[in-house]
Amino acid sequence: MIKRFKIGEPLDTNAVVEQLDNSPISEFPLSVKTGEKIEITFNLAPDDKIYGLGEAVRGINKRGWIYESWCSDEINHTEDKRSLYGAHNFIIISGEKKLALFVDNPGKVEWDLGYTSADTAKITVPSNSAYLYTVDGETERDIVRQFRKLIGKSYIPPFWAFGYQQSCWGYATEDDFRNVRDNHRKNNLPLDCIYMDIDYMDSFKDFTINRGLFPDFKSFVDDMKAHNIHLIPIIDAGVKNEKGYSVYDEGHDNGYFCTDKDGNEFECGVWPGIVGLPDFLNTNARRWFGRQYKALTDLGIDGFWNDMNEPALFYSADGLKKAQEKLSKLSEKEIDIWGFFGMKDAVMGLSNSMDDYSSFYHDFDGKKVCHKDVHNIYGAFMTRAASDYFEEEFGKEKMLIFSRASYIGAHRGSGIWFGDNFSWWSHILLNLKMLPSVNMCGFLYCGADLGGFANNCTGDLLLRWLQLGVFTPLMRNHRALGTRAQEAYQFGNTEDFADVLAVRYRLIPYIYSTFRRCSDENDMMFRPLAFDYPNDKIASEVEDQLMLGDECMIAPIYEQNKNGRTVYLTEPMTFVKLSGENVTIEKLGKGIHYVEVALNEVPLFIKDGKKIPLAKPALSTAELNTENLEYIG
Amino acid sequence: MIKRFKIGEPLDTNAVVEQLDNSPISEFPLSVKTGEKIEITFNLAPDDKIYGLGEAVRGINKRGWIYESWCSDEINHTEDKRSLYGAHNFIIISGEKKLALFVDNPGKVEWDLGYTSADTAKITVPSNSAYLYTVDGETERDIVRQFRKLIGKSYIPPFWAFGYQQSCWGYATEDDFRNVRDNHRKNNLPLDCIYMDIDYMDSFKDFTINRGLFPDFKSFVDDMKAHNIHLIPIIDAGVKNEKGYSVYDEGHDNGYFCTDKDGNEFECGVWPGIVGLPDFLNTNARRWFGRQYKALTDLGIDGFWNDMNEPALFYSADGLKKAQEKLSKLSEKEIDIWGFFGMKDAVMGLSNSMDDYSSFYHDFDGKKVCHKDVHNIYGAFMTRAASDYFEEEFGKEKMLIFSRASYIGAHRGSGIWFGDNFSWWSHILLNLKMLPSVNMCGFLYCGADLGGFANNCTGDLLLRWLQLGVFTPLMRNHRALGTRAQEAYQFGNTEDFADVLAVRYRLIPYIYSTFRRCSDENDMMFRPLAFDYPNDKIASEVEDQLMLGDECMIAPIYEQNKNGRTVYLTEPMTFVKLSGENVTIEKLGKGIHYVEVALNEVPLFIKDGKKIPLAKPALSTAELNTENLEYIG
Repeated sequence: MIKRFKIGEPLDTNAVVEQLDNSPISEFPLSVKTGEKIEITFNLAPDDKIYGLGEAVRGINKRGWIYESWCSDEINHTEDKRSLYGAHNFIIISGEKKLALFVDNPGKVEWDLGYTSADTAKITVPSNSAYLYTVDGETERDIVRQFRKLIGKSYIPPFWAFGYQQSCWGYATEDDFRNVRDNHRKNNLPLDCIYMDIDYMDSFKDFTINRGLFPDFKSFVDDMKAHNIHLIPIIDAGVKNEKGYSVYDEGHDNGYFCTDKDGNEFECGVWPGIVGLPDFLNTNARRWFGRQYKALTDLGIDGFWNDMNEPALFYSADGLKKAQEKLSKLSEKEIDIWGFFGMKDAVMGLSNSMDDYSSFYHDFDGKKVCHKDVHNIYGAFMTRAASDYFEEEFGKEKMLIFSRASYIGAHRGSGIWFGDNFSWWSHILLNLKMLPSVNMCGFLYCGADLGGFANNCTGDLLLRWLQLGVFTPLMRNHRALGTRAQEAYQFGNTEDFADVLAVRYRLIPYIYSTFRRCSDENDMMFRPLAFDYPNDKIASEVEDQLMLGDECMIAPIYEQNKNGRTVYLTEPMTFVKLSGENVTIEKLGKGIHYVEVALNEVPLFIKDGKKIPLAKPALSTAELNTENLEYIG
Repeated sequence: MIKRFKIGEPLDTNAVVEQLDNSPISEFPLSVKTGEKIEITFNLAPDDKIYGLGEAVRGINKRGWIYESWCSDEINHTEDKRSLYGAHNFIIISGEKKLALFVDNPGKVEWDLGYTSADTAKITVPSNSAYLYTVDGETERDIVRQFRKLIGKSYIPPFWAFGYQQSCWGYATEDDFRNVRDNHRKNNLPLDCIYMDIDYMDSFKDFTINRGLFPDFKSFVDDMKAHNIHLIPIIDAGVKNEKGYSVYDEGHDNGYFCTDKDGNEFECGVWPGIVGLPDFLNTNARRWFGRQYKALTDLGIDGFWNDMNEPALFYSADGLKKAQEKLSKLSEKEIDIWGFFGMKDAVMGLSNSMDDYSSFYHDFDGKKVCHKDVHNIYGAFMTRAASDYFEEEFGKEKMLIFSRASYIGAHRGSGIWFGDNFSWWSHILLNLKMLPSVNMCGFLYCGADLGGFANNCTGDLLLRWLQLGVFTPLMRNHRALGTRAQEAYQFGNTEDFADVLAVRYRLIPYIYSTFRRCSDENDMMFRPLAFDYPNDKIASEVEDQLMLGDECMIAPIYEQNKNGRTVYLTEPMTFVKLSGENVTIEKLGKGIHYVEVALNEVPLFIKDGKKIPLAKPALSTAELNTENLEYIG
């Protein structure tokens, strides 16, 4: 059962779709203090677990750390971090009783989940206003279903968005893209999408195309489509401040950009240099921004990724000026060690600074609000601009759209990716752990940058990561400029990659139907074993395996130089290894097993009595035969 | 069998103690190219493993990454790093045949171990000169014994150095130290040492004491000793450039500091501001520096840790000047995004820059050498200054000394700690993996900063880490200024910490005797399971368990919110849980088991037919009864 508690005068974050009556705060099941800020406190028994928080570091069980909901341009997903790109204010407290809490407030909510004191949780909302929702139920899965009904059905992308996708910051010319396409095709590597990072734009200006690189962009898009490849351009949040650039001029003339305390346009630096930040919280500005996508959809584009929309700020014009003054003073004289540290702080403190986030304002449909108080819905509302426009213009399930920053509510119109990451083996496991956590919060279409964005990938890392990626709805290989090439044909043993990618296409009918069902039924696609086997003591702590749909369990290999791993079976299952067209099957009993998995194999465990469909391999979703299926299990 | 190959005119790095005849290079068992640089290449069969490289990131099996031997002030021990604090040029190639290689060259050796191409290893020595040693043998352990004989017996510290130790950058006053002592004693928490970080010095000047904080240092040292606490001060490599400071004046007057290309003293900035870098490669300078420790040993100090001796350089005087000029220009005008990046690069590029390492020189006993060509022995030779002096003055096993930077050879006179790290759960496992790797290279007295140096620790992280730390010869809890307090009495459940620390003291007779034996017999204290069970396929890939001595296996819990873990037993063993005075025992058969381990328990596995001694708990090594032992197994 869900209850809503209204404290103060909360803003409408667009998170929920069902309007509930307010329950009296006296019925709130946890200790709560209101006032200038809201504090929720509860005790934790030794075996209590806490699930949720969507995109975050650490375990599926979030207990024992302090998190902050604060959409952050944070590439280093190390354990000490408190915030990543998304802000997802939903937790399930799972003890003798099960109770979920959704804190609907777009400011920086702090979640001390047994960090300061191991047996106490304290949630602090930096505001006198919020909607608090509590959900109770018999099981975590049931609680999630109730919550997901409250927040509305999850976004479903076009079918082809379930194909394999290749991305790279640095693909610049038409030839770059054609090479990627052709190298996949000639190596028997399936592919449905190639991404266009900031390189395709004219001077990093949103909704422009570098005509030098793409003299006839529409023909180029059509040509790629004729090869069953969708081109997916990036759109950044900031609009380059440049007179004569129509998007900027329109936004400026209509007052659609965020302003400083005096009402002047807030100026900050990102890729294009100084930009205006569209005020996505303002309905007119948001609709105006949504219509800009037409510049690209008119050219045949049918998918986008929205980036830099936390918003990431390299610096503000004011912050830079102050740093320059400080550096100028420090540069004139002989400085000591503290001068050196001062210099370092001056430069390092420029990006994503709380001072800057506190110094600009939104016109939230008539109400002036400081950015820091609504920070966490900025990216979600940017993506809402796009998804509202797409639905209005093209109908549902026609456009691919996903975002880096997000807030609950954005799951109805778009997917997310887990943002910039590293080519680290440990990210395979972090990727796995985030899947159920974001599913709880409504995000079904999701995935990590396979192979890792920053730093250099190795072939074995990419293969093992893909062996998880074959199950994630968004399956995208992405890397940063200047890192080692990591397309599936770059490592010599291309057949191994063909074997693994073929498995993705064989599984698409199953993944797609499971995905649709989970969207329709407000269900989780990926679940911790603890949700399905609450009385199994070992299962309750397993965090390197996941239940998938109602039929399967996944347990990828996530360590280098391993030919196998141990896996815990909660009940008898069929251990399946998929590789290219090959399928090997072995019945395993309940218990702990050591299983071997080669670099070109995908391990999967199917529950006794269940079967899943397999299609024939194909090089694109367009060529995939979804009718003639084989069943295994 | 060991062979030595001499290429060019190698410098004497002090790594080995046995002088072998040179074998003709035609007998070198791997492909080798000589010339301006030396390149060693060999093929890797699919199941070949590579062990070694001492202090490094990633697995016990180093295959699949590119490493660089380059002593680095690198706090972020993430998977993408190539170098940490130590440079240990020894690997064992373990395939059908087993062959070890030691590259004795103090420059930046690159180890591409199946990174560029999965089936090829390539080692590049940036010099025309090196001693190459190859060792073959039947087993890895045998190869290590031969190699360790070559490089000489490992350092043995005083017995009390096996007690539990507490450190913190930030303990400043006498009261700070007394509080730490008293809080341990009154909470039944054993303790043998408290560390003094840079705070104790006068303006960070080596071999000085802040007399404001410690008006009568000798009495203070004596008072702590009366409580069975040894104070262990830090010594940094750089000597503050300050006229009137006798250490600097002496070094300066004698020309004992490194110089620039023109022969002027090289000036760089570290904690004290501008320093002179003692030229430890010069025997006279090294002996002079060693004698400086007397200032503290005269006051009763009997242990030191040598830090910042990679050497870490915050900046050079020249580099800072250039950066200031650049920043001054960038501060005068309106800059664009590239100006901002230029600003960032100017500041971030200042520390530990290769330009600086290439711009100063040593007088290596008459030969002028550029620092970059001998970088990796700088820290080792600093510690040699101390250990030579100590042995001469006090004899063997009298002084505790360990170092951050190291090179093989330094293991004879000192220990190492694994340098600055983070309060990350993943570091427990990295700590475990480094143990056998550094043991191969001679370093027996070693350990990581338990609880993590940077960022904030939680009680459960510290407890789990201590459960590995009870087995490491150096068992030190250390944290950085400004992080959450992490002494064993800071988390509420102090009894749990008392239970775990008691186990350390119960185990000291076993750990100490095993340690001594491994030093005497050139053996490894910690070994990968693969070394002991070469024909066990599962064991050969286990990297979260270690063999300890000839009797035991350890398998700590290293993940948060876990009450248990799976463990692989290669043969029947006794599963022991130690907690305070309690011992529980369970016989387990060969195979995979799930075992539960509470937060106050230390898990240990004893091989069938073996027994290990346990002492009664004690609050310090001085109070430990090493005679009256109980045997378990």
